[in-house]
Amino acid sequence: MALIVQKYGGTSVGTIERIRNVADRVIRTREKGNQVVVVVSAMAGKTDELIRLAHEITPSPDPREMDVLLATGEQVSIALLSMALKEKGVEARSYLGGQAGIVTDDAFGKARIQSIASEAIKRDLDEGKVVVVAGFQGVDERNNITTLGRGGSDTTAVALAAALKADVCEIYTDVEGVFTTDPNVYHKARKIDRISYDEMLEMSSMGAKVLQIRSVEFAKKYNVELHVRSSFSDEPGTIVCQEDEEMENVLVSGVTYNKNEAKVTIKRLPDRPGIAAQLFSEIADANIVVDMIIQTPSSEGAHANLAFTVPLTDYEETLKLSQRLAKELGAGEVVGNKDIAKVSIIGVGMRSHTNVASRMFVALANEGINIMMISTSEIKISCLIDAKYTELAVRALHDAFELDKPPSEEFL
Amino acid sequence: MALIVQKYGGTSVGTIERIRNVADRVIRTREKGNQVVVVVSAMAGKTDELIRLAHEITPSPDPREMDVLLATGEQVSIALLSMALKEKGVEARSYLGGQAGIVTDDAFGKARIQSIASEAIKRDLDEGKVVVVAGFQGVDERNNITTLGRGGSDTTAVALAAALKADVCEIYTDVEGVFTTDPNVYHKARKIDRISYDEMLEMSSMGAKVLQIRSVEFAKKYNVELHVRSSFSDEPGTIVCQEDEEMENVLVSGVTYNKNEAKVTIKRLPDRPGIAAQLFSEIADANIVVDMIIQTPSSEGAHANLAFTVPLTDYEETLKLSQRLAKELGAGEVVGNKDIAKVSIIGVGMRSHTNVASRMFVALANEGINIMMISTSEIKISCLIDAKYTELAVRALHDAFELDKPPSEEFL
Repeated sequence: MALIVQKYGGTSVGTIERIRNVADRVIRTREKGNQVVVVVSAMAGKTDELIRLAHEITPSPDPREMDVLLATGEQVSIALLSMALKEKGVEARSYLGGQAGIVTDDAFGKARIQSIASEAIKRDLDEGKVVVVAGFQGVDERNNITTLGRGGSDTTAVALAAALKADVCEIYTDVEGVFTTDPNVYHKARKIDRISYDEMLEMSSMGAKVLQIRSVEFAKKYNVELHVRSSFSDEPGTIVCQEDEEMENVLVSGVTYNKNEAKVTIKRLPDRPGIAAQLFSEIADANIVVDMIIQTPSSEGAHANLAFTVPLTDYEETLKLSQRLAKELGAGEVVGNKDIAKVSIIGVGMRSHTNVASRMFVALANEGINIMMISTSEIKISCLIDAKYTELAVRALHDAFELDKPPSEEFL
Repeated sequence: MALIVQKYGGTSVGTIERIRNVADRVIRTREKGNQVVVVVSAMAGKTDELIRLAHEITPSPDPREMDVLLATGEQVSIALLSMALKEKGVEARSYLGGQAGIVTDDAFGKARIQSIASEAIKRDLDEGKVVVVAGFQGVDERNNITTLGRGGSDTTAVALAAALKADVCEIYTDVEGVFTTDPNVYHKARKIDRISYDEMLEMSSMGAKVLQIRSVEFAKKYNVELHVRSSFSDEPGTIVCQEDEEMENVLVSGVTYNKNEAKVTIKRLPDRPGIAAQLFSEIADANIVVDMIIQTPSSEGAHANLAFTVPLTDYEETLKLSQRLAKELGAGEVVGNKDIAKVSIIGVGMRSHTNVASRMFVALANEGINIMMISTSEIKISCLIDAKYTELAVRALHDAFELDKPPSEEFL
């Protein structure tokens, strides 16, 4: 008998009909002799509706009260799903985050799970019940309701799977799995059968919206096997698991892009020690996360041009801050550019294979795409390019690494 | 410094604008030097919407899960009101039923409050915070969410007022207070300034929908002074409190009517001991509450006609049950009548004054209204009449006891 944690996202429980379908799938899983814990999100659109309501009251709602408000979304879902299961003759019991023993820190709106007291759930499972848990929420030590941030239900599911030592954590969503790239950008995108935690982390952070990053970190830490799949079909999806040899034989697993950054360039920055440190610590103090950085000596010698990227949402603030600092530091002009995109290739195979980067640069050059910045990690290479070439670049890279072909046929 | 519990119903928090108005009123109360605990209902329409959702899943939703679902309505209200208060610069903190220490039995959907651990609330009040509590809900001993039934927020407010030894419990609603009769039926209806708990209980049970009966019982038991008033004006409403001499000098405080009953008559019931007992115990076993009963000897001697009233919602079932029993007991025909109404006069003055009943009967007779049944209590006389005369009867009784005049001018 296996213990399976299933997580259903907002789209999967978006209507009464879909909630019934989820109940049917849970029952089928149970009839195969498994114990089932179900984690659900708020019905699609519900969370946005609640946020709108709060913003009608105030542009900056109190974070504690915001969590009290948002937590109702998942509460509605667990009640309805439990009713649907009982209606179909299956014993089920709903759990709020707090009732499920999910204790977090008190960072309202982005709380982190600290512990899970899962005895009550285990008892219900042993009694043959299906356990239905509200995703996205917990309580802090003083019993205040907390929420885990967007996509937090994934983390709830993975954390429960870890605490319960579940055999697998199935993440049901509205796509078939993790793809080699965005199928909306390139029709040749192929569903990946198996991917490592590290690759998935890079994919998530590069803008692939299938899983919350924290849930993948959690899964990696506790070695929880994830199965990302569609709630609208019975096809297997993508398994996210520990790296194995087969994965290492694949040069590149996926191509991602991110249009949500902007570039700021400070020209003629005096080239003396500590200047960059001052600049970036002031930006960090403003809670702005810098991604790529490049420094190039200017033609005049004692100066350098410094360019970096920040999230688009922080662009205006960064620009102002940079202009002030440029003046203070005696630098030159500050130039901003919002029309940029970052394309990345990701794969654990890069660790053991050379010539991956050059193949990427050649592929982009062949399309006449200029590379503004480059950043690399062990398993990822990112290039900053003009935004208008994004789709072209994605397709060129997908072709260059033959991602449309299954791994076994991959050119090595 | 007084401690005031204010309860706002669904209409009073029905829109964002109205929630802001509630915040303003709370702040005004606070600025007068009072400590304030606010109890709120779900936004108007919200509870019905949730019930509809559940009924889309199943005609008979699991009671435990129904309470999980319904409790979200008040949770949304406390979050929004707390945000609105903070936005206006007032420290506020929301409490779910469970967080407020409200422990109930486990009768889901109609739970009764067993205890309130109000230390946390007291601490917040002492720190100068406004405390915002979700009405209608609590938790049982095993931390399951429970709800108190329709109008349960009134009971939450009164129970909190009792636990906190509040100076007054203000019930804000969409009417000006308690009226001598339904103003929609008679324009001469007058707002009552002060009314006793017992009168209020009779008014509530007779169909005046201002307060949940249980909340009045609670208020009486713990001697909590209630102030029923409008959230849309600053006029004082109706004080519900212990009986005093002045109230006793008033013959009749109000006239109520109830169209939600039906009459069942069993003809030629054998007139032998135990027959009525058998009939009514079978009806009671079906969870049907019988209100008025009248037995009249039939012309043939050894038989009697037995008539009684039940809630309209139980009418069909009662009719079937009575027909079966009539056959078993060898009785005659069973006749049902849904076109009946009960009109009542209520007043603690009846205890010490005679001729109230006769004045009532004369007033009805003068209008040619036939009385089918009569029932009385110490402070109430009810007459069952043809439903079509309801409004006429109410107006006639209101005039007969001169309820349009303030108590001081009342004829004694």
